[in-house]
Amino acid sequence: MICGKTIDEFLSEIMRFHGFKAPGIVLGGIMVDYCQELIGAGVEADAIVESIHCLPDAVQLFTPCTVGNGWLKVLDWDKYALSLYNRKTVLGFRIWVDTEKTKSYPDLYNWYMRLVPKKELSSERVINAIFTAERNVLSYQAIQITQHSDRHKKGETGICSSCGEAYSLKQGTSCLSCQGHCYYIKNPN
Amino acid sequence: MICGKTIDEFLSEIMRFHGFKAPGIVLGGIMVDYCQELIGAGVEADAIVESIHCLPDAVQLFTPCTVGNGWLKVLDWDKYALSLYNRKTVLGFRIWVDTEKTKSYPDLYNWYMRLVPKKELSSERVINAIFTAERNVLSYQAIQITQHSDRHKKGETGICSSCGEAYSLKQGTSCLSCQGHCYYIKNPN
Repeated sequence: MICGKTIDEFLSEIMRFHGFKAPGIVLGGIMVDYCQELIGAGVEADAIVESIHCLPDAVQLFTPCTVGNGWLKVLDWDKYALSLYNRKTVLGFRIWVDTEKTKSYPDLYNWYMRLVPKKELSSERVINAIFTAERNVLSYQAIQITQHSDRHKKGETGICSSCGEAYSLKQGTSCLSCQGHCYYIKNPN
Repeated sequence: MICGKTIDEFLSEIMRFHGFKAPGIVLGGIMVDYCQELIGAGVEADAIVESIHCLPDAVQLFTPCTVGNGWLKVLDWDKYALSLYNRKTVLGFRIWVDTEKTKSYPDLYNWYMRLVPKKELSSERVINAIFTAERNVLSYQAIQITQHSDRHKKGETGICSSCGEAYSLKQGTSCLSCQGHCYYIKNPN
């Protein structure tokens, strides 16, 4: 059982949500499972992940925390680590893939350190190595959160003086898009 | 039907994933449904949302795009707008809640502009107004994406000289956490 699911359920939920059976989410699910056990049942936990790759989906699938409900924060650090913490005490656990430990599982090590191109190392082989290794490649530490534990508050809403759309007044007199961050142009066709 | 689901299925998927029946995701689902119709069936679409609140979950629930698979980008602009675009041509549609149009639906307008405290305006009333309004409060534009359409590439992996964990070498000689962004301390207890 992983995160309260059989292996088949676990893998089919990954397929359904993430679109394919990525080794990173399989490993992420095992990390979530371990971290949930450390923090204990019945604790309302918020989450922080330290990579935008795969890990956010493992947390969103196997905990109540999502990006859209604000209980998951995503840091773009490219580190394969996550923390779950009690949202009241801000005490919790950080868990990470321990590179030294992965060396005992060559397929896992080569995938994790990106030493072998994808074409030469199938997802199936990596996933087999992950299931063989399970928690043996993980390390953890009890932590206290010092940043990012605040819930994002919605600010006062106004109408942008430039585009006329609603936005948060804390951004200034016009919205961030009109301040030069716009990511699109009108379709020229 | 919304996003190919009955209203009951639609609402129960929201409950299961997001944890509660947030009006923002109900509205977001209607936006996704409309945008998918505009872009057309069979188009492999990537997504951009312009708020961290609720909208990311609507896209993750009702399209194949997630944060962890990289097909969804989340901008923290506090604007209730989203874009779906063909990932090859980068042509697509942006859809947003049009404040002027919401004025015909007072409960929706008051909720959207945050004019009435949550205690005085129940989620049920707002959701009823959203279902009454449906697409009548939305506007859209055909767009071409000029930013954020690139997939995030994983960089070369190395070992941080400070903490010994794996990280992306493009961050420098130590990882971002060791460069002063760390969000935790060891549990002092």
